[in-house]
Formats: sequence, structure tokens, C-alpha cells
Amino acid sequence: MRVLILGGDGFCGWPTSLHLSDLGHDVTIVDNQSRRRIDLELEVESLTPIRSPGVRIRAWREVSGRDIGFVRLDLAAEYDRLVALLQELRPDAIVHFAEQRAAPYSMRSAAAKRYTVDNNVRATHNLLAALVTTGIDAALVHLGTMGVYGYGWSGSAPIPEGYLTVKVPTPDGDLEREILHPANAGSVYHMTKTLDQLMFAFYAANDRLRITDLHQGIVWGTQTPQTVRDERLVNRFDYDGDYGTVLNRFLMQAAIGHPLTVHGTGGQTRAFIHIRDTVRCVEIALANPPAAGAKPAIFNQVTESHRVYDLAKLVSDRTGVEVVHLPNPRLEAVENDLVVRNEQFLALGLRPTTLSEGLLAECTDIATRYRHRVDLSKIVARSVWQAGMETAQDLMTDLPDGPDPLVPTVAAS
Amino acid sequence: MRVLILGGDGFCGWPTSLHLSDLGHDVTIVDNQSRRRIDLELEVESLTPIRSPGVRIRAWREVSGRDIGFVRLDLAAEYDRLVALLQELRPDAIVHFAEQRAAPYSMRSAAAKRYTVDNNVRATHNLLAALVTTGIDAALVHLGTMGVYGYGWSGSAPIPEGYLTVKVPTPDGDLEREILHPANAGSVYHMTKTLDQLMFAFYAANDRLRITDLHQGIVWGTQTPQTVRDERLVNRFDYDGDYGTVLNRFLMQAAIGHPLTVHGTGGQTRAFIHIRDTVRCVEIALANPPAAGAKPAIFNQVTESHRVYDLAKLVSDRTGVEVVHLPNPRLEAVENDLVVRNEQFLALGLRPTTLSEGLLAECTDIATRYRHRVDLSKIVARSVWQAGMETAQDLMTDLPDGPDPLVPTVAAS
Ligand SMILES: NC(=O)c1ccc[n+]([C@@H]2O[C@H](COP(=O)([O-])OP(=O)(O)OC[C@H]3O[C@@H](n4cnc5c(N)ncnc54)[C@H](O)[C@@H]3O)[C@@H](O)[C@H]2O)c1
Ligand SMILES: NC(=O)c1ccc[n+]([C@@H]2O[C@H](COP(=O)([O-])OP(=O)(O)OC[C@H]3O[C@@H](n4cnc5c(N)ncnc54)[C@H](O)[C@@H]3O)[C@@H](O)[C@H]2O)c1
Repeated sequence: MRVLILGGDGFCGWPTSLHLSDLGHDVTIVDNQSRRRIDLELEVESLTPIRSPGVRIRAWREVSGRDIGFVRLDLAAEYDRLVALLQELRPDAIVHFAEQRAAPYSMRSAAAKRYTVDNNVRATHNLLAALVTTGIDAALVHLGTMGVYGYGWSGSAPIPEGYLTVKVPTPDGDLEREILHPANAGSVYHMTKTLDQLMFAFYAANDRLRITDLHQGIVWGTQTPQTVRDERLVNRFDYDGDYGTVLNRFLMQAAIGHPLTVHGTGGQTRAFIHIRDTVRCVEIALANPPAAGAKPAIFNQVTESHRVYDLAKLVSDRTGVEVVHLPNPRLEAVENDLVVRNEQFLALGLRPTTLSEGLLAECTDIATRYRHRVDLSKIVARSVWQAGMETAQDLMTDLPDGPDPLVPTVAAS
Repeated sequence: MRVLILGGDGFCGWPTSLHLSDLGHDVTIVDNQSRRRIDLELEVESLTPIRSPGVRIRAWREVSGRDIGFVRLDLAAEYDRLVALLQELRPDAIVHFAEQRAAPYSMRSAAAKRYTVDNNVRATHNLLAALVTTGIDAALVHLGTMGVYGYGWSGSAPIPEGYLTVKVPTPDGDLEREILHPANAGSVYHMTKTLDQLMFAFYAANDRLRITDLHQGIVWGTQTPQTVRDERLVNRFDYDGDYGTVLNRFLMQAAIGHPLTVHGTGGQTRAFIHIRDTVRCVEIALANPPAAGAKPAIFNQVTESHRVYDLAKLVSDRTGVEVVHLPNPRLEAVENDLVVRNEQFLALGLRPTTLSEGLLAECTDIATRYRHRVDLSKIVARSVWQAGMETAQDLMTDLPDGPDPLVPTVAAS
């Protein structure tokens, strides 16, 4: 299968590219390296020393004998080149990761809000328009987020996979209707994913595009069976206040003895998935596209749910590193329950990597191994949801020497 | 009240600007003249000879003694100038008409689809971001469309004003929830209005912006008590296949003896409002903004519903001009019922101009008076919803001389 991976240089896109290449697919990455440019802007770096696309792809050829293509292209700005590329490659499938994906970053400033909306809406819409124009009937898999549902909206009912059956009162009695789950975006970033959904619904109906939207939970972990094959293949690991996702941040903090930073009470429950399961889910979604003319298929791409505070506690208990509560820069409910349906992927063969088995196995390797690369001034989250909200000072200014608190028996390399 | 009218050079925006100026408000128009540029691109002109903004504003000063400001600014592209303008004028209220508003145009080509999405999403989002950044607490009134609801979705239940109360099944029994009416966009243009809605919901919740969204029906009529005061104030009248709205097209067709062009069976029911009522509705909405922190207020801005075929029949019966059925370039239901709630505006004092009273009174004046300006090659609709759909040939190539078929007793001037 000829597969285009849009955003294939990113945290999810890179291991997905390797996974699909390893399965024998003919993979081409499209990426404008905007994520690496945002690193420059924020003056942060992946904790892991990620290599340039050229080095990565050479390393993969060396270890696997397989070629991956790389096209530097801005989906949001270079429509004509996108059309030409589609016409040249005529992909059977497209995986679309190419969006600005950090909620805190999307709330940083008016410029960041506007960039997030412009980039994400245009990237998605350009792609849809290009598929219609070229007539290429590729299966399109897009990465969405669990955040489109909001939290606590449906009471004790588990969050369904994209669609919700409701009763609409009419003079002739209740009418049963399947609707797209109402949008409840908590940030400008999440809002863009709710806009994506409506664009997908329209283009699936009007142009019979075959679209799958994966409502992904928070991804944790770093490596996959492919990325560990050579250090030059290492996946990115974000730990900063904008791009670092909560569990990875705790693991890195534990690795350096930094207090585990819980924003607010930590009573928020969130859904998680390991990066190894992300790549598997994409593989499964690609193998099971909806029919032309059908509404977009929506899968919840999550494997387990945890309260943020419980995660901190878990990591704290294993490492002895204390938990601190910092001001919450987000506007969100202090507490929520979260039960998420994910039967579709389980039925199609996903065997989840659970937190309890995976937690120490790999992330600690990463966090411990690369702890010397951490920039302590980037750990505390500083983007706020409204002007004037309180943020915290840096909690640690020097990296402690000595044994690593997270895995006392493994020496830091 | 200091009011900014975004898109104030357009069909709805211009008479609204005059109406609000006439009421004593301090009005500034912001417009990038994109609508006039699209006229150039399509090689069409308003049937009425609209004058440049400068001439219009001078004429208004002459007849009313009142000043209207005009700022040539692209909302979608000139964010920094928008911020500076807001800071300078500090408006109490903003009316946002400034979007690409023709469904057929939005389906014409990939370029038109992309322009419609880029222009409309960015115009709206830039405005929202600018309000947050400047901290200006203006009441924002946006023009949406009835098309966001889709047709026939809620069975025999009338279309509610924006929000729908549904029952969500949960293990603890049905949960009652008020949701934004599910989006059912029929074109890329309508889709952009469904995206606007989600942006409004987010910014009202996160930033306490006070937003009113007016879900407007198809506007008919041309003139208001202000625009008739001098011919240089005349409002635009679009009759072409892209921008001409259905009733105005029938009136113009009748005026020149062109067959009344019904696309498909004409079984589609649509909601209508006279331009005089549009300007009144905006006035009422401005006087009744939602509270800060409340969800966006949504009004259905419509006064009556009619089956397209019945409208054609009505005009045909009065004028003797035949009705013809042309291929339908839209993907839509062949027939639908439509009952729309509009109690909010009625309760706040709107006294609708009905079709039966207004039909001949004014539109025929316009259509008859300016019939010599019509370009016969622009009447048949040519934009299609999917490549390869059938369109019709021109039905008439010469303007007939002699008495005007629409109002046989009134001479064409
Ligand atoms: N990481 C998570 O926890 C998580 C959770 C839920 C959903 N997602 C979604 O999964 C997708 C991938 O996330 P990620 O963590 O890999 O993010 P990432 O930022 O690491 O990767 C995104 C990649 O897309 C590229 N990109 C962005 N805009 C582009 C454009 N206009 N043209 C070309 N390339 C562009 C970036 O350069 C980057 O390499 C995103 O859509 C994200 O919203 C991620
Ligand atoms: N006319 C109708 O029947 C109808 C029905 C329902 C809703 N609406 C809505 O009402 C609003 C006004 O409609 P209209 O018929 O007056 O359309 P119009 O095209 O005549 O007017 C829109 C005006 O906005 C301006 N504009 C567009 N993009 C701009 C930008 N980026 N920056 C600055 N100015 C910009 C255009 O130049 C134009 O003068 C639209 O939002 C439309 O969707 C109209």
C-alpha cells in the first residue's frame, strides 16, 4: 500500500511511519518541520536527541533495508504542491497528523491562537479539497482528540465512539437521531479538532471521501519496536510546559528528582494510550476504512483512564519524589469522571500496553538516560487560558547529582 | 452607540449601516471590497447601479447630515490593523457580515472552496482573537444562516432557535441536555457558518465574549427607507446564478420575460426575510445582547417559509412568465418541509414585511427599472456541487423589447 504520512516527522507520525514501513508499506512523509521550528521559538528541545529527517531516514534504510520518502511541504500554505504530490504518488491511504497539537501553546497568545486555527483548519481543508480535485480515492485517517467531547457532559454514560444516539422531542413523540457527539472544546487547539469534524462530515457526505477520525487520548511512552533499533531513530520526548504531556512530564520529573507538578487539584480524569498502541491503531484503522458515501468512521483511540493526581501518586510512590500542586492555568472542571468506550479497536485486535506493565520499562529508560539534557526553566507550565491567571516560579534551578531517584538500581548513562 | 459594521459595503451591511446611522448611532464600515472584486471575477454586476463607498457615504451625508466612517481592511489578512482599529474606535457593538456568502460560489472550484473557508474562518477568528487581546467588551452580532440546521432533520418538530433540548440515554435514565442544534451543512459556505458557531461557543465560554448569532433566512427585496432617499444610496441586487437569491432571481426574470428557473423540482422549502426586516433584526439584536459568560444568543432571523416552486408559481401567476425546471446542481433533498421558530424577534417587536404585501411594491420597481442592465448569460446557475453534474444552456439570448411582463401597467424607465 502506498501511504502518505502527513506530519510524519512528529511524535506520533515518526513511529507510525516506521511501523508502516516495517509492515512493508511504501511510506512517504510530508512535513514542514513546523514542530521543530516551535522548539526553536520556545527555546526547548526534545529530551531525546532526535535527528534530522535525512539522518533518520538513512538510519532506517541501514537497519531495515527499506526506503521512506520525505517531502518538505506546508499543507496549510502550499496547496498547489500538495495537489501535484497527490497526482504524482496517487496514495492508497493518507494519515493526517499534521496539526499544531498543544493546548497550552494554542492559548499562549493571540498569535498562537491564530496560528493554531489557521494551520489546522487550512491543513485539513486543503487536504480535503485536494482529494476532491484530484479524484484520488485514498482512505484518509486523521488524528483527532478525546478533548472534543469535553468532560462530564454525559453524566454516568460512557463516552461513545464519536456518535451519540439522542431522543429529539417532536409533536409526534420522541425521534431517535444519531448525532455527532456535541463539541465541548476546552482550548483553541481542541476547538480546531471540533472544526475538523464538521469538515469531515461535509466532505464525506458531499464528495464520498472515506474518512476515519481517531479521537486519541493522551499519548505516553516514547519508543516502539522500530525506533529502538538505532539511536538515530529515537522518537521525540517533550517535557516542557506546552508540549509535554502529563505522564511523560511526571516520568521526566521523577528522573531528575523534580517535584511532580500537578496543576490544580489533579482531580481531572484523562484517557491515555501508549505510543506503541497509537501506531497499531493507525494500522488497524487503515485496514478498516468506511465505505464511500458513509459518514466518517470515528474510533476512540484510548486504552485506559486515570485521574491526574493518581498518576502523580503512582509515580511518586515508586520513586519517592514528592507531588506539588501548582495553579491551574486552564479553565476546566476541578474534578470529573471519565468512562470511554473503545470496543472498536479491541474488537479489531488491539492488545493494549497497560500503564502498569509499561511505566517503568521504557519511559524511565528514556527519562533517566537523557536527564542531563533537561532544561529546568522549561518545566513549569506558563501558558494561561486567560490573561492575568497565576503561574508558578521555577521549582528547581539545578540538576541534582548522584543516583537517579526514579530507578535507583539503573545507573544514568 | 459606536458601532462597527464589518462587511458594511455588502447587500445586508450597507442598508444596516444606513439604518443604524439614521437611528443616531456612530457607524464605521469595515470592508475589503472583496464582494465587488468577485463581481469582476464573475464578470457580473449588481442589477442596480451601486456606487463606490466614497460616493455612497457622501450621498448619505448630503441627505442625512450624518457621517459614516469607512475603513478598507481585510479582516482575514490584516489582523494587526484590525487590532489597531479596535483600539482606536473602542466600539460598543460590532456587526459581522464580512464573509463570502454564496453557496454556489463556494462550490465552484477548489480555489473558491478554499477561499471561502480561509476567508470566513479567519475573518471570524481574527475578530474573536482581537476582541480578547484588546479586552474590548463589545456586543458582537454575527450573521449566520438557516442552512446550518439542514432540512428535514427534526421531523415534525419546528426548527428551534439555535439550541435543541435532547434526551441522552444513560445507565441512570435519560439525561436532558441543551445542545447546539446538530450541524447539517449543505455546501462549503454553509459549513463555514457551522465552524463559526463552534468558535463562538468556545470564545463565549472561555473569554466571556458577548455574542449573538443570527441564523438568517434567504433575504429578498432591495431597498429600505434609507436606501431610497437618493439613487446613489441604492442597495445591490444580485441576480446571477451564484449570488442571486432565489426570490430576487424570479422577480428579475419576470421583469425581463425570462422563464423562471427552478432547479430540480422546486420542492425545497426555504425560509425568507425582507431586507427591511434584516436591518430591524440587527437593531433589535444589538439592543438585547447576552450577558458576559452566557452562551451565544441565537435568533432565527426569518419571517416566512415557502416552497421554491410555490414562489415561482406566485410570480408566474402574476406575470404570465412560464416556470422551467433546470437540473439541480446541489446535493439536497428533493422535497422538505420547514417550520421555523422565530418567536424571539417577534416578542422583541419585529413586525414582518410579508411577501404578499412587499412582492410587487418594491422589487418589481427595481427589477423593472434596471432591466436594461441585465446580462442574460449570467442567469443560469452553473456552479455544481460535484464535478460532472449537468447544467443548462442559456435560455434567452436577447432582451425582448416592449412592455415589461412583470408590471404591465408601469413603464420601464
Ligand atoms: N501527542 C498526543 O498526546 C496526542 C493526543 C491526542 C491527539 N494527538 C494528535 O495527533 C497528531 C500528532 O500529534 P504529535 O504529538 O505527533 O504532534 P507533533 O507536533 O509532534 O507532530 C505533528 C507534525 O505535523 C507537522 N505539521 C504541523 N503542521 C503542518 C503543516 N501545515 N504542514 C506540514 N506539516 C505540519 C509538524 O511539523 C510535526 O512534525 C496531532 O494531530 C495531534 O493533535 C496527539
Ligand atoms: N443575502 C442573504 O440572503 C443572506 C442569507 C443568510 C445569511 N446571510 C449572511 O449575511 C452576511 C451578509 O450577506 P450579504 O448578502 O450582505 O453578502 P455580501 O457579499 O453582499 O456582503 C458581505 C460583505 O463583506 C465583505 N467582506 C467579505 N470578506 C471580508 C473580509 N475578509 N474583510 C473585510 N470585508 C469582507 C464583502 O466585501 C462584502 O461587502 C453574510 O455573512 C451572509 O452569510 C446572507
